[in-house]
Amino acid sequence: MQTKANIQSIAPYQPGVWKEGAVKLASNENPLGSAPQALAAVQAKLSALNLYPDGGCARLRAALAEHYGKTPEYFLPGNGSDEIFHFITAAFVRPGEQVLTSTVTFSEYTFAARLFAGTVEYAPLADGKFQLAEIAKRVTPQTRVVFLANPNNPTGTYFTAAEFADFLRQIPEEVMVVSDEAYAEYVTAADYPDSLGLLERHKNLLITRTFSKIYGLAGLRVGYVMANPEVIAYLNKTREPFNVNALAQTAAAAALGDQEFVQKSRVNNEAGKKYLYAEFTRLGLKYFPTEANFIFVYIGQDCVAAFQKLMDKGVTVRPLKSFGISDALRVTIGTPEQNQKFIAALQEIL
Amino acid sequence: MQTKANIQSIAPYQPGVWKEGAVKLASNENPLGSAPQALAAVQAKLSALNLYPDGGCARLRAALAEHYGKTPEYFLPGNGSDEIFHFITAAFVRPGEQVLTSTVTFSEYTFAARLFAGTVEYAPLADGKFQLAEIAKRVTPQTRVVFLANPNNPTGTYFTAAEFADFLRQIPEEVMVVSDEAYAEYVTAADYPDSLGLLERHKNLLITRTFSKIYGLAGLRVGYVMANPEVIAYLNKTREPFNVNALAQTAAAAALGDQEFVQKSRVNNEAGKKYLYAEFTRLGLKYFPTEANFIFVYIGQDCVAAFQKLMDKGVTVRPLKSFGISDALRVTIGTPEQNQKFIAALQEIL
Repeated sequence: MQTKANIQSIAPYQPGVWKEGAVKLASNENPLGSAPQALAAVQAKLSALNLYPDGGCARLRAALAEHYGKTPEYFLPGNGSDEIFHFITAAFVRPGEQVLTSTVTFSEYTFAARLFAGTVEYAPLADGKFQLAEIAKRVTPQTRVVFLANPNNPTGTYFTAAEFADFLRQIPEEVMVVSDEAYAEYVTAADYPDSLGLLERHKNLLITRTFSKIYGLAGLRVGYVMANPEVIAYLNKTREPFNVNALAQTAAAAALGDQEFVQKSRVNNEAGKKYLYAEFTRLGLKYFPTEANFIFVYIGQDCVAAFQKLMDKGVTVRPLKSFGISDALRVTIGTPEQNQKFIAALQEIL
Repeated sequence: MQTKANIQSIAPYQPGVWKEGAVKLASNENPLGSAPQALAAVQAKLSALNLYPDGGCARLRAALAEHYGKTPEYFLPGNGSDEIFHFITAAFVRPGEQVLTSTVTFSEYTFAARLFAGTVEYAPLADGKFQLAEIAKRVTPQTRVVFLANPNNPTGTYFTAAEFADFLRQIPEEVMVVSDEAYAEYVTAADYPDSLGLLERHKNLLITRTFSKIYGLAGLRVGYVMANPEVIAYLNKTREPFNVNALAQTAAAAALGDQEFVQKSRVNNEAGKKYLYAEFTRLGLKYFPTEANFIFVYIGQDCVAAFQKLMDKGVTVRPLKSFGISDALRVTIGTPEQNQKFIAALQEIL
């Protein structure tokens, strides 16, 4: 077997671990379940699973277009945002060319770069935040794609509209800029970027979002990218014909209509956030204020050992060792009951 | 936007066209629907769609292992076989290196090669059959992967166990040989290869199969590759963490237990095959005897025009122009009623 060095260099992804029956606060899933309108739509579609999905995702693209007030040509769905990231590196990165991102962020940007034999350069995070100026400084003629997570996973921090506009002005137009907004629907900060409004001015901007988080459809796998129609048409060439399964398409289109569920999820998240902030403060733990549905919290001890001890107490969270942090956990904001169970367990192990 | 030549060269896939209400015999789907045990399993799983799928597909791999009498390390599921093909080119093909296949076969082998900037060399088909000797002759030091379809799509023909064994002996062990067996469960020929039995001797052999065809789960997207554990472990590095959705995993594992549905599908296919052979003979049309759930038939006229005329009469089939054939159709073997409707329409347009 003749292997390729770029593929050999890929480390296997470490998914959130879950023990049957445990409270799972490890993977930033929606603790309220799935959007009910999505589930009803799935139910109605089960009799046609012998048929291939619509390869063009026409109905879902139309629903996204309506939701955002754009035309369908601005949208391309994928088998989760993960697949979108590799559409992007397939389309823009040749072997040896550069992908630029930050330390302490989502690992799939690096995976997507490696898959196409790209190199990856990281600007350091500071105070849990993407340092856009540091990233801009690192752009070279070899840079093809910049991946930004806003809010960032695992820190939950964000960059502002002004910061983003400033950044985009500094980036050459032939460098593609990806704003990964998987958690955008949870954001409450008033100065969070309206990135969709920047698309017309910045033809090199790509925005990714997902149905895995607030819509509660992680199990079905569906994310999407928004960009100018020429970019979308080009990315579409990198896509397998039937990449988004039929139930995912149906569920996602229906979920967009279920803003009642979205609102309920936001309310739960805000209440949980407030509770967890107060408890962390009471316990003397430093955390980053979050715009997402999870919190990055320093625990003053080895995170892998703490993770194990919490799991023994029936709560699973994400130790951040694989993100390069030894003494912090990422905990998903759950239901009030789940949050209380987590705090009770955490208190016991501190 | 700086594009890549290999991506620009990708022509969009032409999916089977379907008009609402028409008889669809265009995409080799199972006309009897989905395996009932798969549907029951899906139903039971709908309440957990907010959770990520098992990235490791543990239950499905265990079910495949039991079904085939191997260990789970021999199996890797994908988002349809389509995704498996790009795992293979990601893992083995560098820019400029060669993928080898036949003319008049499934287009996704070419897509997978182009995605990773590989070149594609085609040996000519003869009498609708893969010419293994011609393929073997074309192997060069630049050849990394050979894609074989057995049975072949769109001709339905197959190569025998003796032919395959002879071919494998001629191929250098550093060239990976893919036997795409999407339609294997429909095969009735006694001398069809037992490719699984060849895995121990040929470490460079990969076998792909799917749940989209006889199991009736095309809408859910799940295929798999069988190979030696070292090959599987290496391919696994090219995989996104959650590539197979939760319902697909559940349905596929349950479908393997539904051999009653498989048997019923085989019986329907054999009856339809016999009927269509007789009708084609009566109409004076040449066809290739098939080992799959579709038939390649020459119609003595332009296939795209014929396709359109048949669609106007409420039947959709696949014109083979995109496969490079101007005067033939590929028709899926349907239910008796669908087959009759197709023949009635065909007779009218001849």
